[in-house]
Amino acid sequence: MPQFKIPEITVERLSIYLRALRKFPPDRVLSSEELAEMVGTTGGQVRKDLAYFGEFGIPGQGYRVKKLVEELSRILALDRIWGLALVGIGKLGTALLTYPGLKRKEFKIRAAFDNDPTKIGTRVENVLIRNTEEIPVVLPRLKIQIGIITTPAEAAQDVANKLIQGGVKGILNFAPVRLMVPKEVKLKNVDLSMELETLSYFLSKHIKPKKVRGRRK
Amino acid sequence: MPQFKIPEITVERLSIYLRALRKFPPDRVLSSEELAEMVGTTGGQVRKDLAYFGEFGIPGQGYRVKKLVEELSRILALDRIWGLALVGIGKLGTALLTYPGLKRKEFKIRAAFDNDPTKIGTRVENVLIRNTEEIPVVLPRLKIQIGIITTPAEAAQDVANKLIQGGVKGILNFAPVRLMVPKEVKLKNVDLSMELETLSYFLSKHIKPKKVRGRRK
Repeated sequence: MPQFKIPEITVERLSIYLRALRKFPPDRVLSSEELAEMVGTTGGQVRKDLAYFGEFGIPGQGYRVKKLVEELSRILALDRIWGLALVGIGKLGTALLTYPGLKRKEFKIRAAFDNDPTKIGTRVENVLIRNTEEIPVVLPRLKIQIGIITTPAEAAQDVANKLIQGGVKGILNFAPVRLMVPKEVKLKNVDLSMELETLSYFLSKHIKPKKVRGRRK
Repeated sequence: MPQFKIPEITVERLSIYLRALRKFPPDRVLSSEELAEMVGTTGGQVRKDLAYFGEFGIPGQGYRVKKLVEELSRILALDRIWGLALVGIGKLGTALLTYPGLKRKEFKIRAAFDNDPTKIGTRVENVLIRNTEEIPVVLPRLKIQIGIITTPAEAAQDVANKLIQGGVKGILNFAPVRLMVPKEVKLKNVDLSMELETLSYFLSKHIKPKKVRGRRK
């Protein structure tokens, strides 16, 4: 186990490697270049990322799919079940509750919360929607470690506080607002406005304006 | 205008600064520390990020909100209207079509596509759903520069190809798959599995397992 701090981007790539690897037969042996090509990076990057965690390859051959899948799953702590709570059951929250990418044995949505009285007590995908006020009480009971916030921006900080009060150590935030959390809580933001504005910036560098004063050679 | 390459993370932070700034009265003057505190970073980081693009502050005082909002909007190319197309009108696509964060004057969803005959011809939020096959023809006509992919993983690469054929230069991909795009096309991935697996990794470093062989001193 590494004692030094692993860059977050490396951990993100491990997740991407793992998904790519799962498309191959378990007994296949892949070179770092073959794996790199599947995910649009370089063989050197793959080797560097994996080297943080140990030596998983067969010298001169590459990586056996089954073994690397096991190792990456263990490193990413996918060898256990994480309990999730989703707060804010509007259109986006409902979409996430039914999202195939979230229907995984490692990540189990055990609770949903909203403050709309017409939603409380109903079920989406067999998950009972509870009152947001109950978060701090319900979470420890249902062994929930990860919270997903899909509320409007105004409500998100209060919801984050309640999640943390309920013992959550990781938050995935879709609300368009920067949340303040204690440093032992890991916060990841999915920020659509920011993604679009970053695209806008890069596109403006590559799309030439229609009207230009002169013509370049 | 800078001639050197700006780190993507800096561009992302500009977007976050801009959102924070909009909450203040236009005539307010903010120090870099005050702005930093709003978004959970340091004054030094704010100054470094802005310095890539010029000198926007009033020496010894800080930044006038109105002026900095204007400058950041211009840098992020939000002084124009970008045309968007959304492909894959399932639950997630529908949620995005109605998502308040995407209802902005700078980003206009002008077209939606799906391959389900029962959806084609209907409207969501007044946007007509067209056949995915029409993407390459419809996009130039509607002046669309950005594509959002919310299809299942299997369909995403084909959709990306069609978007690029239709002239799209920026893609926001929600499908859980790595897409191959030419290097002049800017691709951003919103990858929920990866976000969760990264959380899982970091949480496993901080949550002690229940059963341990010995007890640490």
